[in-house]
Amino acid sequence: MKVVRSDDHRLHFPHGELSDGELVRPYECPERWDHVVAALNAAGMTDVVEPEHLELDLLLRVHDPAYVAFLRTAWTEWEESGRHGDMIPTCFPTRRMAQHEPLEIDGRLGYFSFAAETAITDGTWKASIASAAIAKTAQKHVSAGESAAFALCRPPGHHAGLDYFGGYCFINNAAIAAQGLLDDGAKRVAVLDIDFHHGNGTQDIFYNRSDVFFASIHGDPLSEFPYFSGFKEETGAGAGDGATRNYPLLPGTTFQEWVAALDQALREIDEYGAEALVVSLGVDTFADDPISSFRLATEDFLMVGRRIGRAGLPTVYCMEGGYAVEEIGTNTVNVLIGHEDASP
Amino acid sequence: MKVVRSDDHRLHFPHGELSDGELVRPYECPERWDHVVAALNAAGMTDVVEPEHLELDLLLRVHDPAYVAFLRTAWTEWEESGRHGDMIPTCFPTRRMAQHEPLEIDGRLGYFSFAAETAITDGTWKASIASAAIAKTAQKHVSAGESAAFALCRPPGHHAGLDYFGGYCFINNAAIAAQGLLDDGAKRVAVLDIDFHHGNGTQDIFYNRSDVFFASIHGDPLSEFPYFSGFKEETGAGAGDGATRNYPLLPGTTFQEWVAALDQALREIDEYGAEALVVSLGVDTFADDPISSFRLATEDFLMVGRRIGRAGLPTVYCMEGGYAVEEIGTNTVNVLIGHEDASP
Repeated sequence: MKVVRSDDHRLHFPHGELSDGELVRPYECPERWDHVVAALNAAGMTDVVEPEHLELDLLLRVHDPAYVAFLRTAWTEWEESGRHGDMIPTCFPTRRMAQHEPLEIDGRLGYFSFAAETAITDGTWKASIASAAIAKTAQKHVSAGESAAFALCRPPGHHAGLDYFGGYCFINNAAIAAQGLLDDGAKRVAVLDIDFHHGNGTQDIFYNRSDVFFASIHGDPLSEFPYFSGFKEETGAGAGDGATRNYPLLPGTTFQEWVAALDQALREIDEYGAEALVVSLGVDTFADDPISSFRLATEDFLMVGRRIGRAGLPTVYCMEGGYAVEEIGTNTVNVLIGHEDASP
Repeated sequence: MKVVRSDDHRLHFPHGELSDGELVRPYECPERWDHVVAALNAAGMTDVVEPEHLELDLLLRVHDPAYVAFLRTAWTEWEESGRHGDMIPTCFPTRRMAQHEPLEIDGRLGYFSFAAETAITDGTWKASIASAAIAKTAQKHVSAGESAAFALCRPPGHHAGLDYFGGYCFINNAAIAAQGLLDDGAKRVAVLDIDFHHGNGTQDIFYNRSDVFFASIHGDPLSEFPYFSGFKEETGAGAGDGATRNYPLLPGTTFQEWVAALDQALREIDEYGAEALVVSLGVDTFADDPISSFRLATEDFLMVGRRIGRAGLPTVYCMEGGYAVEEIGTNTVNVLIGHEDASP
């Protein structure tokens, strides 16, 4: 399977992430990428493709224009306002507050985000665009006939909504890929999100649409980030009514319990009639992940890939989370190997 | 005029406040209190009263029970979860998100807040209760016949809403005082908020009520914290329709422009028929305030007090913001002196 990747991810790496009242080295770090590349090479998955240039108009297919405009110039405005540290949002439009976009960069920073652990740096826009271009390029190969492709995205994307960033995500790469599959001919596309954390951004983007089915298996939001999205009752709205499915699972969930949800999700994707699939591939379901609480083992990820491969759908894998840095490579590549083993 | 104060404010002082991507010493610091006390003493305002014990049920008159329960046990739950650093919220229920209270302390921390510059520490609950007790005690003296009293509250309160903290505020002291004035016999009470920042919490608490008129003069939220509250169009709802008035003013506003808004607010309070007044007294309208942008001079604060005193209403002053630490005392006390000069 083709692997799309780019060194531009290194342009994004904030100095700190808020954790226990302090700024610590972010869990979402560049070495994650290095370990995945090393594991891909070790497995002989060396059919590497550089991302093509991304038309920025494509971002507007899945994000609000005001949000894209904000992301594009945020760092410049920050510097012009006399600041040079990472852009960490501090004030958010929560319950009963007005939803006006402020004029000043401090206010806009909070307006377009939902979480304060994620910072914008001088390189975030460029890295995010490169990451989206990777997803788009992988999608193009799949739309052109490849049975599967792997987009080694960094920053990840599934927490980025229509008009907000957070959870290490800025541009929703999986949504870019899903939209691309539609634009290139598929009538119905499914996004399967197997990251430990609910793909609140992807859900948000497609919540009212019937042409993208979104299924997510994740830690119960009552206990796990992003807390305010990913409940079972969230099943889509308007034209998208019934096209969102959430499988929140309790902390400590074993592979056996987890895979039952996966099988159910794959059945529903089949019933929906998806012609192509995007997988939001996080491997933070791994037992030793430092910020998650499921119990998948390294060899389980082979089974995950096999099950997805057996669905027989043209598939774009987009890299999302996974913070057990040493093991992220093997766990990720095991999914891809499993897929190749199983696909018809 | 009686001055109510307590040393318990020292129990609350977080290690850091997010600013320009770093944790800096909080602007809202204990020395603020020391400077106000020194200026009160220098002015001979030494009729000091200790706060009385606060019945916790009183908090439920202006805050949501789930929020009070959260604040009360937050630090214990945080420590039980293995953390010992300041509690800085990181994930917020913003646009289109579910408004369920999470089970775990990390999620609840974000659910009950709107801003990440404000941390809960081991002493926050005790200091906040003491601050509310100060407001309540000052109110009792006024309800018992004093023409005015000064509640030297710290932490401040006007950003604390029905069920959220933020902007250095946890319990809304001004709301406690306003509710107390009603409970002790006043039929209609006004809260006049002259802090530089919009009193979003006080507005939130009384937005649907007709027995408390809320008027706030503040930096335009399109440019200034708290960004998502304090617009002119916000005038109350339901039974409270028309009982909220906002005077957002542009950065650089002079005393002359500012005082026109004050006169207008006082006229409206008079027309409303308030029988008693609570003043949310922030002096961050001062020209040299490090985080604000109005241009009031030290001597202007005498005029502010005179104008409020001329209204002739029984008045509880509650200390809110002011971050030009050296001058906060003189500026605050000038308002109180002005009030005493002018009151009938």
